[in-house]
Amino acid sequence: MIEDKNREKTSLEKLGEFGLIAHLTKDYPVHHKSTIKAIGDDAAVLDFNSKKTVVSTDLLIEGIHFDLSYMPLKHLGYKAVMVNLSDIYAMNAIATQITVSLAVSNRFPLEALEELYAGIRLACKTYGVDLIGGDTTSSKTGMLLSVTAIGEAEEKDITYRSGAKANDLLVVTGDLGGAYMGLQVLEREKEVFKVNPNSQPDLDPYSYIIERQLKPEARKDMVTLLQKLDVLPTSMIDISDGLSSEILHLCKNSTVGCNLYEDKIPLDPTVISSCEEFHMDSTMVALSGGEDYELLFTIDQSDFDKIKGNPNLTVIGHMTNADQGAHLITRAETKIPLTAQGWNSFNNS
Amino acid sequence: MIEDKNREKTSLEKLGEFGLIAHLTKDYPVHHKSTIKAIGDDAAVLDFNSKKTVVSTDLLIEGIHFDLSYMPLKHLGYKAVMVNLSDIYAMNAIATQITVSLAVSNRFPLEALEELYAGIRLACKTYGVDLIGGDTTSSKTGMLLSVTAIGEAEEKDITYRSGAKANDLLVVTGDLGGAYMGLQVLEREKEVFKVNPNSQPDLDPYSYIIERQLKPEARKDMVTLLQKLDVLPTSMIDISDGLSSEILHLCKNSTVGCNLYEDKIPLDPTVISSCEEFHMDSTMVALSGGEDYELLFTIDQSDFDKIKGNPNLTVIGHMTNADQGAHLITRAETKIPLTAQGWNSFNNS
Repeated sequence: MIEDKNREKTSLEKLGEFGLIAHLTKDYPVHHKSTIKAIGDDAAVLDFNSKKTVVSTDLLIEGIHFDLSYMPLKHLGYKAVMVNLSDIYAMNAIATQITVSLAVSNRFPLEALEELYAGIRLACKTYGVDLIGGDTTSSKTGMLLSVTAIGEAEEKDITYRSGAKANDLLVVTGDLGGAYMGLQVLEREKEVFKVNPNSQPDLDPYSYIIERQLKPEARKDMVTLLQKLDVLPTSMIDISDGLSSEILHLCKNSTVGCNLYEDKIPLDPTVISSCEEFHMDSTMVALSGGEDYELLFTIDQSDFDKIKGNPNLTVIGHMTNADQGAHLITRAETKIPLTAQGWNSFNNS
Repeated sequence: MIEDKNREKTSLEKLGEFGLIAHLTKDYPVHHKSTIKAIGDDAAVLDFNSKKTVVSTDLLIEGIHFDLSYMPLKHLGYKAVMVNLSDIYAMNAIATQITVSLAVSNRFPLEALEELYAGIRLACKTYGVDLIGGDTTSSKTGMLLSVTAIGEAEEKDITYRSGAKANDLLVVTGDLGGAYMGLQVLEREKEVFKVNPNSQPDLDPYSYIIERQLKPEARKDMVTLLQKLDVLPTSMIDISDGLSSEILHLCKNSTVGCNLYEDKIPLDPTVISSCEEFHMDSTMVALSGGEDYELLFTIDQSDFDKIKGNPNLTVIGHMTNADQGAHLITRAETKIPLTAQGWNSFNNS
């Protein structure tokens, strides 16, 4: 998309690697006391005192994880940070720092990278995270982002995937399937655009699901909410690959089974209407769609009263003994084994 | 190179993303008390107690940073770790953990990635570092590695680029230019191989410089040595881009100048002989070659007696006031301004 713009373009060769890093990362404010030294040395220096450090990393690759024909670069920068912060929040920790490494081909002018970093900067500001380092290099083809997120937590607060017990309640934040249906709409519009570049699609009815795809928000607010409600999940994971895949991770790591109730899965009305339009089953979309970046966690039944009625939290099932397996209980009250059909980049290439 | 082998090949689609990660990272021993949780959750969990945490990250991209026609995958895995550990040691810290993210096209069978991870594993074992996470995904073309290294140090021991003072001595570990000359030999042999695939080159005379290119070692031993000698550098950086570029970083960050003496630059005899063979100036090679991963640091003059005579440490110059600039004092005693001609990936594409 950037190629359509008539702004002046600055080639990356002119700046060189150090010039580029310096330019893109200037004026990044530091939010955390734990950031002693951010960008500008061989390594960043951090101080977590008595707290534990959590670390997670993700790669985002053009043509595999994102399509720049409908993903504005600012959104891409924002989303790349969200994807990583989500993993930190899934540990019930607070994200404090990120590193961002970037590989780009020469087809991107400096102005394109400034857009990308504007998104990264907005994400850092909104979520109170410090950019502390990274690497910038050329690539043979396309763009690649590698983000590492660092966070902190008291040891007693950290939630692993392995702590769920039989009879724990299974809870999800927000609603599911939106990001996947947003992608369907964007892919359709891309095909329409190829045939008729002058078409002016009315995307207003889809704005919620398109935003779920293009500008997801990691659920820092839910980590804060759970603390306020005095609820410590027994296990937690973020939903990046689809609900069923994540449930199976919890079951495997905690050695438990699960009953998931189809009629409890939270769906936004836009997801339901777009599923009808695309002739897709909304339950399948929630189970396998992915990229919602909601949190999925288990709590002891005794904590139910604390979360009851909160519009952000939905009990969608309960854990069982491992020998009972993981099942979806359908609206028709049939029991179907859950299978992971989440997204696998190696099947998509 | 892997394509030439007649071993059975396993395609990556078969394993899928989770299977691949699990397979490649199984049986990774944990060395550090600070590693509470390594691979297998949304994030790793670390505990640095009262120590400070240092973090550095680097991208390595096929066709830009490495050429698989002469870089065996095991060496690539090893080198990818070294490049990152070197940044940690340059802070005078000890590396404790790494994350490794990998993007590969389907042309690589599982067995190729096992080779790569054998190199990563060897590096982790040799340097006492824990692999705590990463991401594995497909790429449109070629292979890409993103490594983040984490280390620990007492705050008082951390050396920045910014602490050098006028009259400090400039010291380098090991010798310089070897990695670059090794690359020249390998590039030449690649061209010879294209013309005559049956040629059997005698690379024995070049084994030192080829090893410097293919299997560099980060100077953890020098961090330990400096501690033993009770020398705390006033500033430090690792030599990844070439001596002159790194000196200029120290000068800029410390607001000092520098006199570098050409006749003091440590060169291995193989570097000198191969420079003669390739009609290259060995000083230029040391100044601009890069990839040696030696440490460059400054010390107070009062520490000179402690390092004097150590075969691993060479005083190559001294820092001056900033207004005197950074210069090379040649063997002919002429004074030439130092310029950064280190490697810039954006000029090479």
